[in-house]
Amino acid sequence: MTHPSDETALLDAIRFNADGLVPAVAQCVRTGQVLMLAWMNRASVLATVREQRAVYFSRSRGQLWRKGETSGHVQHLKGMWLDCDGDTLLLEVDQVGGIACHTGRPSCFFREFANGAWLDVAEPAAGADSAPPPGED
Amino acid sequence: MTHPSDETALLDAIRFNADGLVPAVAQCVRTGQVLMLAWMNRASVLATVREQRAVYFSRSRGQLWRKGETSGHVQHLKGMWLDCDGDTLLLEVDQVGGIACHTGRPSCFFREFANGAWLDVAEPAAGADSAPPPGED
Repeated sequence: MTHPSDETALLDAIRFNADGLVPAVAQCVRTGQVLMLAWMNRASVLATVREQRAVYFSRSRGQLWRKGETSGHVQHLKGMWLDCDGDTLLLEVDQVGGIACHTGRPSCFFREFANGAWLDVAEPAAGADSAPPPGED
Repeated sequence: MTHPSDETALLDAIRFNADGLVPAVAQCVRTGQVLMLAWMNRASVLATVREQRAVYFSRSRGQLWRKGETSGHVQHLKGMWLDCDGDTLLLEVDQVGGIACHTGRPSCFFREFANGAWLDVAEPAAGADSAPPPGED
């Protein structure tokens, strides 16, 4: 994308919240697995499209967060969708390493509520990082 | 679920935001399609598990929103997942009628950003309601 008008069109359709953020759901383009939810501000939406990789906004650090910049688990952008009322993004991504979660699991959604308790279902991969803050690598 | 202790376990693991809400992503259990994102408060999480159907919290109306109560497009709960940092829910649902969106489309994510513009991809079903507010039927 090079045209400023394209970037205006990109941002104008999105209804950012009062903090200037919009939730973005990342889904594996191959398996359909929902990988994670993170937040984006205007700059991260632009960076995601320009760089064709998921660039979120870290609310805890207050800065752009290029997914995978420390872990290598980059999310290459394959499609970007907006919902009917414009306040949620859906990213179809090619997840490098097949691991989206900082715990080493394929998806951040690895706890299922069953029989009255939250149970871990997916095992973390060997050698998974435990250092990064939750959801941020 | 009948045990109060189960409900305590259910809610205690969820990190609700300052408004007492958590985003919930609904995914079709059969196709893997991401259908929508809406919000839940504690009462709607409890109602979802008790009634085994998606019950969101309507931020615009300030009340529980039993998905499909006017359209019939109920989402029967097939699984509930929590992410690594406990601030997002993922619902696996059986979507009655195959239509999650108030526009009559299968998914609320029907606009794709391609070639510098947001383009509608899915066609609405014939006879789709246009009356309900966005995302709420």
